[in-house]
Amino acid sequence: MARQITSHSNETLKRIRSLREKKYRVREGLFLAEGMRIVAEAVEAGAVPRMLVHGEEAAGHPLLRRLAAVTENAGGDVIETTREILAKLSSKDNPQSLLGVFAARETALEEIDRTAAFAWVVCQSLKDPGNLGTILRTADAVGAGGVILLDQSCDPYSVEAVRASMGALFTQVVVQTDGASFLRWLRQGPGQLVGASLNTSHDYQAVRYERPTFVFMGNEQSGLPADYEAACDALVKIPMVGKADSLNVAVSCAVLLYEVFNQARR
Amino acid sequence: MARQITSHSNETLKRIRSLREKKYRVREGLFLAEGMRIVAEAVEAGAVPRMLVHGEEAAGHPLLRRLAAVTENAGGDVIETTREILAKLSSKDNPQSLLGVFAARETALEEIDRTAAFAWVVCQSLKDPGNLGTILRTADAVGAGGVILLDQSCDPYSVEAVRASMGALFTQVVVQTDGASFLRWLRQGPGQLVGASLNTSHDYQAVRYERPTFVFMGNEQSGLPADYEAACDALVKIPMVGKADSLNVAVSCAVLLYEVFNQARR
Repeated sequence: MARQITSHSNETLKRIRSLREKKYRVREGLFLAEGMRIVAEAVEAGAVPRMLVHGEEAAGHPLLRRLAAVTENAGGDVIETTREILAKLSSKDNPQSLLGVFAARETALEEIDRTAAFAWVVCQSLKDPGNLGTILRTADAVGAGGVILLDQSCDPYSVEAVRASMGALFTQVVVQTDGASFLRWLRQGPGQLVGASLNTSHDYQAVRYERPTFVFMGNEQSGLPADYEAACDALVKIPMVGKADSLNVAVSCAVLLYEVFNQARR
Repeated sequence: MARQITSHSNETLKRIRSLREKKYRVREGLFLAEGMRIVAEAVEAGAVPRMLVHGEEAAGHPLLRRLAAVTENAGGDVIETTREILAKLSSKDNPQSLLGVFAARETALEEIDRTAAFAWVVCQSLKDPGNLGTILRTADAVGAGGVILLDQSCDPYSVEAVRASMGALFTQVVVQTDGASFLRWLRQGPGQLVGASLNTSHDYQAVRYERPTFVFMGNEQSGLPADYEAACDALVKIPMVGKADSLNVAVSCAVLLYEVFNQARR
């Protein structure tokens, strides 16, 4: 049974609200997913909410009842609150009828079975959580294994990244590490490191991708640093014939991932 | 020479600020582009700012001096103001050192030379200006002719769309019309209408795209309505093997456009 909380000063609700900030997410090891659809996809992917907060009007929704049962069976907390409080807990631009609180799943490089997938994505100092979420969504779509974040990349557990991932955060392995550790781990096993670069004339369709391919994307503003490019097995360029000199990083990543995927499925 | 304005209540600055809202953009036929890079790309693409607003600290920048000269030579207004006022004029999350005011370039379907490009993008009721800007950026990259917006699509002249387009708004033709007018115009000349759809098993790589191809994308939530799908010459699906049941619309559009582009360049 959902417990009802209608006080703005309730400590549990304050704690949930604090998860909008990274320092509290890191401290608690928890993060927020907003909306019925993403929470349902999380549960379908095997993640169980630690807490579920919903408004009064959602109480009778059959899908909510199922999600609430899953949460309570696993010892989680289901909270019914007012529409007003729920709006305060969720994004201003996108108030939702349901919030889920989940445990962050930290994966270490050493835990990865790299041969379990034909491709992985590696991002270096990616800044925009919307881009990261979109990359996770595409990685899921092609059946990649996960996304490895190097150096000062944005937080995959931010509300924006979770939302843009459309549930893929729950199906993709996410690793946060630094470049030196990644490169050391990479060279201890099979894998072709392919950097997306403007500093090459090597067409992305001219390369025969090996299993597993690590598709390596740089920062939105500056691309891959020179030392990372030097560490790649191949640099590839997506041809551009317009006035623009670059593509959105989530778009570049998708065009590359689909080429690797198309070669693998042929 | 730049004129200096340091009053918060200045009418010109208030008018510029009002361009963050669609109703004033429509009324004035003007829109904002934020940042040196995008304004420079606009000028390179042949657009001339009606007004240019910059902060004191940018005054000595060589690129700004060039942009200011272009603006003044065309009879435009160059304004120097305080950092504080400039921050108020620009996006809260992304204050810039330079703002350009440009005339919206409305293009009618009848003005388009459809054979001038191998591909065009058509978007139906697209909602997110970031997605629209990203689609413009990709369309520019492959050398498409432009983007045709049907029905209640978001405003291509919003600050968010302009920013995400990274200057491509100035190189791509943009048409805003309704579905019936578009379909009538389409059938008066050559062109293959290809809808991105989940309601087909037709692989996007199995189709031979004709010149020009009109790549037809639906709304973020619901995809293309059934009657639009019925009007297509082909429906194609981008294969997905993960748990997710869809891709981001700008990602789907990019994967399709690059397939059409790759066939055309072979």
